[in-house]
Amino acid sequence: MKTLAAQVITPEDLLNHWQGHRALTRRIIEVFPDKDFFEFSIGGMRPFAKLVDEFLAMGAPAMKGIVTKDTAPFAEASENLIFKAQYLEKWDEATAEITKYWQQLTIEDFNETFNLFGQYNFPVIQNVLYLIDNEIHHRGQGYVYLRALNIEPPFFWER
Amino acid sequence: MKTLAAQVITPEDLLNHWQGHRALTRRIIEVFPDKDFFEFSIGGMRPFAKLVDEFLAMGAPAMKGIVTKDTAPFAEASENLIFKAQYLEKWDEATAEITKYWQQLTIEDFNETFNLFGQYNFPVIQNVLYLIDNEIHHRGQGYVYLRALNIEPPFFWER
Repeated sequence: MKTLAAQVITPEDLLNHWQGHRALTRRIIEVFPDKDFFEFSIGGMRPFAKLVDEFLAMGAPAMKGIVTKDTAPFAEASENLIFKAQYLEKWDEATAEITKYWQQLTIEDFNETFNLFGQYNFPVIQNVLYLIDNEIHHRGQGYVYLRALNIEPPFFWER
Repeated sequence: MKTLAAQVITPEDLLNHWQGHRALTRRIIEVFPDKDFFEFSIGGMRPFAKLVDEFLAMGAPAMKGIVTKDTAPFAEASENLIFKAQYLEKWDEATAEITKYWQQLTIEDFNETFNLFGQYNFPVIQNVLYLIDNEIHHRGQGYVYLRALNIEPPFFWER
């Protein structure tokens, strides 16, 4: 076991932080009209469903890879989901899976370097922060889509 | 001094993480055409300049408040900046100020509850994560504005 420098957030608090963000993303999925969830786009960007495909391919698979030391490449699901309800179901499965794998990480694991998806060779904490930041970033895109559709999104600070 | 639970990121790494995000936000300011920076909007949302006003009113003033225990309310600058170059100058001043105040925080301070802006009474680490997340969220909005303007934004992972 390495000696750790003093640090500022517990694994439990960081998991709660991420799951809070994920709960907000779930509400964004819910408020999208079905058709717009799959089709609406601005400036040639992906519709929100495609962004959620990315979140689903990243969060739980990344945590599984980190815990099982599996460096299999990033891959979006091959099955095409065609209803929002299917996305919400996958989302909830991912929520449980993320928590399950997270709880298998030791405090030391966060500072170990791991080659996530065989491509992102960084300390686990940096890979985890990337997963969270990427979701916030693209969810911000979803907020603009909703506003452009004249739909009031949930407050950003509601988690 | 309280006993701290084991935690996952050092103050130095978290500062670097934030400043990396801030460097990316700076590049987004740079790539906006001047007129669009102040005027372009989608769905009735604020133009990017107004979002940067918010970032400038949050980041450095928050860190100053936390370190000096000053709970003065959140306030956007009263002077109106009218050139992008002024925003970049203020941005760089804030960069230095954030680092200066950050370095005055002890490891224990991050877990102390502080009533940021007299309104957000949370542990310092949660307030700091909010500052970072809020910037990522609204910067994501800036990415959509740029794409809608047919401008290629910098890669999200470039910090």
